[in-house]
Amino acid sequence: MTDQGPPSSALHTDPEYLAAVVDLFGVLAYGELMAFERLAADAAMAPSIDDKAALAGMATAEYRHFLVLRDRLVELGAEPQEAMQPFRDALEGFHEKTSPSDWLEGLVKAYVGDGIANDFYREIANYVDEDSRALVISVFADTGHSDFIVDRVRGAIQTDPRVGGRLALWGRRLVGEALSQAQRVAAERDALSTLLVGGVDRPGTDLAEIGRMLARLTDNHARRMAALGLAA
Amino acid sequence: MTDQGPPSSALHTDPEYLAAVVDLFGVLAYGELMAFERLAADAAMAPSIDDKAALAGMATAEYRHFLVLRDRLVELGAEPQEAMQPFRDALEGFHEKTSPSDWLEGLVKAYVGDGIANDFYREIANYVDEDSRALVISVFADTGHSDFIVDRVRGAIQTDPRVGGRLALWGRRLVGEALSQAQRVAAERDALSTLLVGGVDRPGTDLAEIGRMLARLTDNHARRMAALGLAA
Repeated sequence: MTDQGPPSSALHTDPEYLAAVVDLFGVLAYGELMAFERLAADAAMAPSIDDKAALAGMATAEYRHFLVLRDRLVELGAEPQEAMQPFRDALEGFHEKTSPSDWLEGLVKAYVGDGIANDFYREIANYVDEDSRALVISVFADTGHSDFIVDRVRGAIQTDPRVGGRLALWGRRLVGEALSQAQRVAAERDALSTLLVGGVDRPGTDLAEIGRMLARLTDNHARRMAALGLAA
Repeated sequence: MTDQGPPSSALHTDPEYLAAVVDLFGVLAYGELMAFERLAADAAMAPSIDDKAALAGMATAEYRHFLVLRDRLVELGAEPQEAMQPFRDALEGFHEKTSPSDWLEGLVKAYVGDGIANDFYREIANYVDEDSRALVISVFADTGHSDFIVDRVRGAIQTDPRVGGRLALWGRRLVGEALSQAQRVAAERDALSTLLVGGVDRPGTDLAEIGRMLARLTDNHARRMAALGLAA
């Protein structure tokens, strides 16, 4: 993947680019706040106190990411609440439509849903300036909840193999809903879309590269499902 | 209030005292984990993104306290999950019976409920050794959510004075439920109760001092209700 972003100075000289980056951090920040809320709700379904504590720990990590992103919005001269507002419906819609009905569905959602979101944001990071990219990468590097979830989900499938079929379907539904909300955001937020397709003074990417990006996202998703012991 | 606790060495020489302190940190730790969960659920009811972020921040503070208490349990040679387990029913019972029906009830519960719990734990801290006391006091010193809640609740009452009557009733119900769960814990957990009433080699407190303690708790509660603009 090549560095296709504009120089960081574009944040000060290109208002359209600044608007795009504010959109990006706005959607990321609200996504983290929702992730906090959802993981905390999953903690309430935990079968043991240790599991509850583990989920609560993951939730607080998301909240830390939220703070970092919110601070950057302020640095960019944006009003954080205003920057997040346009993405409320899409993100809340996603979470409402994929509300886990039990503990295991919550774990799969945290693993698969956050995984695909993180991959996507890191792809997008290739199209922004160096400062913005460093922030996105640092925020999404710090998500260490994989082993715990893999252990719990694999254990549950071992105990009752039928669980695997149900959770595999659930994983597919999560991706479907995520894609449908992502399309909605892309259609509604022109500024954000220009990060990928380019702006007046900025080159965008071509269709072939977007295709390769989708292939990478799909591959990684299949890899994560396999790690959980689920058919993608 | 006088320092009535045994020396810290009693943690190593008096198994009954150690059991009492493990009970104390067990109930505190699980209380913090539940407080995290509840504040995070309140965040989901927040009317604005800023309010949501504020509640999420309070929730993560409670989680930090939980970690400190859990670490101390480990230092004392206890298995944290085991130490918390005996208090699950009482604490979950309290939260189930006082599940806020809206955002304002959640705020009042956070302010009034945490306030009375914090006061009570600080009173208990007078009866433990210096090391344990320092930990309890440091954990409960760090709860900076008062101003935000006072502002929101007073604002809501100003907009619609009838809200004040409803929330005052709610505040009284919270205290009633808290007392009833506290009595349950005191009846079930002998070790914990001996912190107050004394053990084989430890003097306890007398009934007059317990009376004064209850008076202090009640006074502080009335003060907090008044700060919110509510009749106690």
